[in-house]
Amino acid sequence: MFLLNIHHTAIAVGDLDAAIESFHSRYGVRPLSRHVVADQGVEEAMIAVGGSHVQLVAPLGPDTPVGRFLERHGEGLHHVAFQVADIEAALTHLAAEGAELVDAKPRIGGGGHRIAFVHPRSFAGTLVELVEVT
Amino acid sequence: MFLLNIHHTAIAVGDLDAAIESFHSRYGVRPLSRHVVADQGVEEAMIAVGGSHVQLVAPLGPDTPVGRFLERHGEGLHHVAFQVADIEAALTHLAAEGAELVDAKPRIGGGGHRIAFVHPRSFAGTLVELVEVT
Repeated sequence: MFLLNIHHTAIAVGDLDAAIESFHSRYGVRPLSRHVVADQGVEEAMIAVGGSHVQLVAPLGPDTPVGRFLERHGEGLHHVAFQVADIEAALTHLAAEGAELVDAKPRIGGGGHRIAFVHPRSFAGTLVELVEVT
Repeated sequence: MFLLNIHHTAIAVGDLDAAIESFHSRYGVRPLSRHVVADQGVEEAMIAVGGSHVQLVAPLGPDTPVGRFLERHGEGLHHVAFQVADIEAALTHLAAEGAELVDAKPRIGGGGHRIAFVHPRSFAGTLVELVEVT
């Protein structure tokens, strides 16, 4: 396992347009890109901050993972994404260490990268995403 | 306002030693440094990940901000820290934009840097720390 970078830190928001405007007025930056990721039930906006990103993630409806997160917790920090060189090797290592994987195999995320989620039960209540940039 | 980087993403944990070992077994990295920050009521460990860091933060006791966070939420993502060039200018800008500041003036954080917190009510339920690296 070798972590290349924090690819992004994700914040769950109810209204993506409002959050983009608020982040811009507070912190002076607008998103580089914006994607609907239908299989995750989200629309996400990626804001470059130095060599990393803040991702704003809004649910496509209430009956989605992020919709249920907002219902339970309200808006706030949602997950942290680590960039790895080889996502298959990372998942094999985590499974051997007894980590609970949300995705046993990589799928395609918002930027077209290969991604997989690791369950919050596997480390300090924190949802972790692995990203292999393609 | 100009964000230089995501300085760190912080995870609140109950047992710092156990969390350090767990992070190492899962993700292969150990902390660069470890500090008690008495005025914040925490002990924190900073783990380099590419050009950014994961900070593990444990309370010095239950009657501290992080102790109360753990009581309410359990372990999990706690705050995100943005590195800025000029923390005084950043605080002036945020106050002018109507942001609610936890720290109206910078104080000294764990690594000896000047830091200030911005209240979660000011952006998407997310506690933001500003860091001017010294």
